[in-house]
This record gives sequence, C-alpha cells and structure tokens, in this order.
Amino acid sequence: MQKIYVIGIGLIGGSMALDIKNSNPNTTIYGIDANVSHLDEAIEIGLIDAKANINDLENADMVLIAVPVDASLMIIKDVLDAISEKTLVIEVGSTKEAICNVVKTHPKRRNLLATHPIAGTEFSGPKAAILGLFNGKTNIICEVEETAFKLQEKALKLFADLGMRIRYMNPKAHDKHIAYVSHLSHISSFMLGKTVIEKEKNERDIFDMAGSGFESTVRLAKSSPAMWTPIFEQNKDNVIEILEEYIANLEQFKNHLETDNYKAIYSEMENTNHIKTILKGIV
Amino acid sequence: MQKIYVIGIGLIGGSMALDIKNSNPNTTIYGIDANVSHLDEAIEIGLIDAKANINDLENADMVLIAVPVDASLMIIKDVLDAISEKTLVIEVGSTKEAICNVVKTHPKRRNLLATHPIAGTEFSGPKAAILGLFNGKTNIICEVEETAFKLQEKALKLFADLGMRIRYMNPKAHDKHIAYVSHLSHISSFMLGKTVIEKEKNERDIFDMAGSGFESTVRLAKSSPAMWTPIFEQNKDNVIEILEEYIANLEQFKNHLETDNYKAIYSEMENTNHIKTILKGIV
Repeated sequence: MQKIYVIGIGLIGGSMALDIKNSNPNTTIYGIDANVSHLDEAIEIGLIDAKANINDLENADMVLIAVPVDASLMIIKDVLDAISEKTLVIEVGSTKEAICNVVKTHPKRRNLLATHPIAGTEFSGPKAAILGLFNGKTNIICEVEETAFKLQEKALKLFADLGMRIRYMNPKAHDKHIAYVSHLSHISSFMLGKTVIEKEKNERDIFDMAGSGFESTVRLAKSSPAMWTPIFEQNKDNVIEILEEYIANLEQFKNHLETDNYKAIYSEMENTNHIKTILKGIV
Repeated sequence: MQKIYVIGIGLIGGSMALDIKNSNPNTTIYGIDANVSHLDEAIEIGLIDAKANINDLENADMVLIAVPVDASLMIIKDVLDAISEKTLVIEVGSTKEAICNVVKTHPKRRNLLATHPIAGTEFSGPKAAILGLFNGKTNIICEVEETAFKLQEKALKLFADLGMRIRYMNPKAHDKHIAYVSHLSHISSFMLGKTVIEKEKNERDIFDMAGSGFESTVRLAKSSPAMWTPIFEQNKDNVIEILEEYIANLEQFKNHLETDNYKAIYSEMENTNHIKTILKGIV
C-alpha cells in the first residue's frame, strides 16, 4: 500500500489525488491543508482518504506540494526535514527559480523534484478538482539533475500515468517563458475585467453584450488572488518586462487608430492571426 | 414560398440561413457575396439554395445584410433602392451609428431594421456557419421607431425563431457599450498574441506552455482583419477612449509591482473576481 501525502488539496493537488487513486487503487491518500474545511470537503467528495499533518510525513512514499507559491517557499524545508530518505517530494508551483534557490543546499535536495504541470482552470479549492485534468498536458521539470535518479523514475512513472508530456528547463528559463505565456494573460484578463466593470455601471449591459468575445478574454479574471499575488511577486522582473512590451504594443495600436493608419491595423491583426497555426491542436 | 436573400454568406449570414431553413423549410434562400468561391461553398454545404445578385432584390421578402461594416455602408443604399415596398431589410453589423446615419434620409428607411446580434466565433466564411448560433443570445435593435411596424413584427418573429432576446438601444449608446465589452477584448487579445509571438522566437515554447490560460485570452486574435479593421475605424473614438483606460489600468498594475505593493495587487484581483457573478449563466 503506497502512502501519498498531498499538501494543499485544491484544484491541482485534488486533481492529482483523483488521477492517482484512479490509476493506482492500492494507494492511501492523506491530505494536509491549512484550511480545515477544505480537508473535510476533500474527504467528503472522495479526494483523500484521511487528514494528516506535517509530522506524519516520515511515513510518506510520496509527497505532493500544491500550495500557493509563497506558502511553498515557507514549508518546503520543513517538508524535506520531515520525510524519510526514500520519500519523493514533488512540488508543482507556477514559479520555479525561488523554490529551487531555497532548497539548493538542503541535505535532502535530492528527494525533491521541482515541476510545473501546465494545467488548470480559473477555479480553486477541492471542488475544482477534475479527473483527467493533466491528460495530454505539458509538465515542465526543472533542475532534474538535482533529483536522485530512482526518484526521477518514480515521478516519471506517475506523470506517464497522468498522461503528461515532459519538458526539461532550467528555472530561470521557465520563469521567463511562463511570464510571457501565462502570467501576462492573467494580468491582461484581470485588467480587462477591471476596465469594463469601471465603465459599465449597469452590470446588465455587460451581461447582455458579453457574448461577443468578452467572456473568454476575461475568464482568467476569475482566478484566485491568493494564488496569483505571490506568483507575480516571485516573478516580478519577468512580469514587468513583458507587461511593458504589452503596453507598448497597445500604445502603438492606439496610435495607429489616432492617425487613421488602418493599413497598419489590418496588418498587425493579419500577422497575429498566425497564432491559429501555433495553437492548432491545443484546444 | 418565402424568398430570403442573404448578402454576405459567412459566419453570421450563413448561420442565420441555417436557422431560417431549419425553422421554415418553406423558404428559398439566395446568396449574394463578393467572393464567388464562398457562394459555391455555401451551395455545396447547403447554406443557400441558389446564387443571386443585387438586381434580384425586388423579389425578396427579406434581405439580410451580413458583410463587413465598411461594405455595409457602401451597399446599403443600393439595397434599399433595389427592394420592393414590402421587403424587410435586416442589417447585422457590429457598429450602428455610421449605418443609421447613412440611411437617415433614404425614402425606404422604414424598410430597414438596424440590429446587432451578439453572437459569433473567431472564425469566418461559410464553413464557420453553425446551426443554433443565436439561441439564447442578445440581439440589439437600434432606432426601432424608424422601421415600419409590420416589418418590425416580421423581424421579431424571426428573432424569436432564432431563440434571441431583444434589447433596444440608440446607436450612440450601442457603439459605446460594444467598444467596452467587445472591441476592447479583441484588441487586448490581438496585442497579447503579438507580444507573445514577438518574445517567443521558438513557437514550440508557446505551444507547450499555452495550456496555462493563454489559449482562451488569445482566442479572439484568430479573428478576421477584414471584418475588424472597419469596425475599429467606425468606432474609433469610443475604442480610443476605452483603450486609454485599459492602458492606464495596466500601467497602475505595473506600478504596484515595481513598488512591491502586493496588497494593492491582491485587492485589484479580488475586486475584479466579481466578474464571476456578472457572467454567471453566460458560459
């Protein structure tokens, strides 16, 4: 009987728990969460078998850390202190440089695999967990060479069960690319929602007219501030850099409008249509 | 046998043709399109029964104008000149002030109903047509009092068959609100796509990491430049105004990051989460 401890039983931790239980019924899943009502909910809907706490981790075959990235930084050393020599710890936060730095000299660094499964929805908490969430998605593994080979193998077996494809990256490159492709999308979506809410005092107008593309561009503005604030904090430099480029492009578009340069507007859109080809097969 | 002429047999015109044929099989649908291959395609996939041209419109019971808004401005008077006294003309463009202005003094103004069905996808052309596209969506009708009462009734019957709910608005208000809720979303999405494509020289990186929210925020960047350039042109003033507010909000967010004001970032996101409630029931 494998014992798996999931720290943070929300969208990501809960979905992994569901998939693991589904592919390996011979597993007991323990939940650890700062939010006690989340633990009760997780038991009730069958995500975990029992509650646990950090002192129980010496019994763990595997520990998944799926908490907001600020909490992750705070607990990671205690988790490594608490586990056995054989335990695999997988951390799944959306930023990778800070977490890799904080464990760099820890005696149990080789028990940890730093990953970022690129999957999720705009929802959070145990009820957001979905069976099969990771199937066909990319999992980015950072500093793989710092993890013990046997534990790498064990983790890769798990990711194969989840249906994930693997990419290896260093933490600096990960944080830069993810700022471009994910973090900027969240900011553009939040600020779009904010701008429209500010202008439309009558919410009925938003609701009635939202069919025209608004609801998909603003979807990410439903995301959890508790999860996203520390991500932006840890990835501040990359996020500021890409945000500046985004603002510059918007300014240029506005300038084309102000100068009635519709040829330029047409060609900006035509060049960006190319995104169709890039995304083909993703959605 | 009702004769309906659809001018512009793409996503909107084609989808309306499908719905009309579905709810009223006793209808002949004629297609008129500047793009001959679109007409052939439309016949092949069963959107229309036959090709026609603008001189045939005197036989029409109903004409749908579903072309880009610049083309609409150019042909609307010719269409009104060509129809009979009893013909209903429905125009479905995404901007309403320019079209209402151009027909203001036309002797057949009362044959025209100016509408904006808030429905669509990022795709275009006859193959983008979908049965049931308008079901449950909002249709905005402008200057309803300028349309003959009998023809209003006929149009409302059609929209009821399509499953649409109706809102009445003046053209100025329509163009302002739609700039907030639709046009800004398209610009934010196009510029997001542009920014990420510029930074990610290796498209594989976009593809692999796009799971994390990018594909929904960038969906609208697949939209047709031929359709959208004239929309931005006709709604220039409103679009510039809302774009300025959007850029100001992005600048403020960046400033919060630069000054490490994470409390402000948290509360911006928390306040915008409210969009969940507003959109409930739309998606």
